[in-house]
Amino acid sequence: MPKELRTVLWVGNRVKLIDQRKLPSKLVYISCKSYRDVALAIKSMAVRGAPAIGVAAAMGMALAAKHGRNRTIGELMSRLERAKEVLASTRPTAVNLYWALDRVMRVAREAARSGSVESVVLSVLEEAKRMADEDVEVNRALGKQGSTLIRDGDTVLTHCNAGSLATVCYGTALGVIRAALEEGKSISVIATETRPKLQGARLTAFELKTMGVPFKLITDGMVGYAMQQGLVSKVLVGADRVLAKSGHVVNKIGTLTIAIAAKHFGIPFYVAAPTSTLDFESSPEDVVIEFRDEEEVHYVGRTRITPKGVKAMNPAFDVTPPELVTAVITERGIYEPTRLMELRQG
Amino acid sequence: MPKELRTVLWVGNRVKLIDQRKLPSKLVYISCKSYRDVALAIKSMAVRGAPAIGVAAAMGMALAAKHGRNRTIGELMSRLERAKEVLASTRPTAVNLYWALDRVMRVAREAARSGSVESVVLSVLEEAKRMADEDVEVNRALGKQGSTLIRDGDTVLTHCNAGSLATVCYGTALGVIRAALEEGKSISVIATETRPKLQGARLTAFELKTMGVPFKLITDGMVGYAMQQGLVSKVLVGADRVLAKSGHVVNKIGTLTIAIAAKHFGIPFYVAAPTSTLDFESSPEDVVIEFRDEEEVHYVGRTRITPKGVKAMNPAFDVTPPELVTAVITERGIYEPTRLMELRQG
Repeated sequence: MPKELRTVLWVGNRVKLIDQRKLPSKLVYISCKSYRDVALAIKSMAVRGAPAIGVAAAMGMALAAKHGRNRTIGELMSRLERAKEVLASTRPTAVNLYWALDRVMRVAREAARSGSVESVVLSVLEEAKRMADEDVEVNRALGKQGSTLIRDGDTVLTHCNAGSLATVCYGTALGVIRAALEEGKSISVIATETRPKLQGARLTAFELKTMGVPFKLITDGMVGYAMQQGLVSKVLVGADRVLAKSGHVVNKIGTLTIAIAAKHFGIPFYVAAPTSTLDFESSPEDVVIEFRDEEEVHYVGRTRITPKGVKAMNPAFDVTPPELVTAVITERGIYEPTRLMELRQG
Repeated sequence: MPKELRTVLWVGNRVKLIDQRKLPSKLVYISCKSYRDVALAIKSMAVRGAPAIGVAAAMGMALAAKHGRNRTIGELMSRLERAKEVLASTRPTAVNLYWALDRVMRVAREAARSGSVESVVLSVLEEAKRMADEDVEVNRALGKQGSTLIRDGDTVLTHCNAGSLATVCYGTALGVIRAALEEGKSISVIATETRPKLQGARLTAFELKTMGVPFKLITDGMVGYAMQQGLVSKVLVGADRVLAKSGHVVNKIGTLTIAIAAKHFGIPFYVAAPTSTLDFESSPEDVVIEFRDEEEVHYVGRTRITPKGVKAMNPAFDVTPPELVTAVITERGIYEPTRLMELRQG
């Protein structure tokens, strides 16, 4: 993936998204004309990854603002509220979605107080574009912070995809690896395939191959083996939500199992999360774990792997407690999981 | 799977094997005319599971004895030695393979000392058939032993397939579950899909469905989540080799990761292994872990899941140390992993 290829972008009053369901065999964009198209893209995981979902949702709000027949500010604001509701209902776990929607609504309300319909529409669109640009800058800063933890010769194990594709560009966990490579460090990567949706096998493998870093893919069950054999120096994953009050990390299903194994073998376990992924309000019991269609477990591509009539579980995320997390890497510094409240602004 | 359907059997001077690569979509047998056919079936995993491999190899020896043009005992014995070498080279990790081949050769040598070519051939065939029958009886006894550990209301997590299909009939880990059900206990099962070869999703799901026990399938990465949610009372797996001197358990890749998670959550971790799976000689460093073709990771059915050119690791087994194993269930009793040498005969 060329360095400046963006996962989510605004072109000619459309939101363009890389269709990540088609990767790695095809690199195609889908073009969203309405906020409902964006909501569907998020729900179906055409776009996925907490930061990318946040920016896509903000751009969905811009579509809602642009394309409605809003004669009055009141009409526009209720349309935005409706769009926010639809977009917020797509996926319950990643916090960036709510963060992004709240941020856009705040800007819209402010513009509405003093301006015209046009100025509200413009503010919303500009805010969405700003969030996309900020995402890139934040990830670059996060990458630089995290790179200080990476030593020459390290082999970093990563799970799922916390790369360019999970963000607008650059990546969080893979952003740290990218930054280490840019600084000339010689490292290698082990990527887990990440069943059921195979984000590791499809997306992370695609990105690492493009980055030119040496890496090997493993199945999720091989994590213990790889660690036992001394093949893993550090674990580095992204997050869908980090609970700042308690230090719990909500991330792709499988993360908890890896964190337990890392603890067992004394391997540092790092989480790369921009501050937009921090949730300063919730406790672990407040987090809704999304359960997705069990067909995702029964099928790989068009191949059904299980007998008919078999039941499967399909939680999309799990929660890793702070005692298994060495540190959280943010764009504003590296924090122990129990000290994240220090990042709360004013 | 009907109770008395056998995975490996001798019919009309042929060895018939269920082709486990075709399950669960088709239940078909392959018919082996020569020991080389049997060797290929083992290597390609048409037949798999340590006890089933052992009996298949013994029957392969019977084919070698039957079908050679052996005019003298010397010719017959060298033919058997050749067959043994070919069969032994198919898969390096499961110890039952060597155990079965040694046992057949011992019988052949004994018959050769006093008898005719015909009597050696007959002894080999009878020994192979006896081993198949014994396997069923041993697993029934093992099941009864293990069932004493299972309580009403338990949910047992199992990995890979240690069922009827991994043995001649009845199963080891699934044999324990079968015995508990036969005793009227009300239990349920969680089965891991077991990438890359999906023995859990394909074979264990097929067997559990036929047994009528309530169960759910999970991906390998969901183990930590399931345990954290309190959904797992016990872990019960089979083994390809148990090192009696040290208590290390060699089993399907992924077992170690599960054992670490079980330890973390204080969940008992049991290994069901007939004494034919015990290795009374080797140390962990003697065990050769089979690395299989990495295409097994890249493909699921005919679907390629990774970009071209990506490298994958594919160790077929891992080694779980005794400190993670609560007990080993054998047909002769339940043993702490450090006391297995008590089972050595003579």
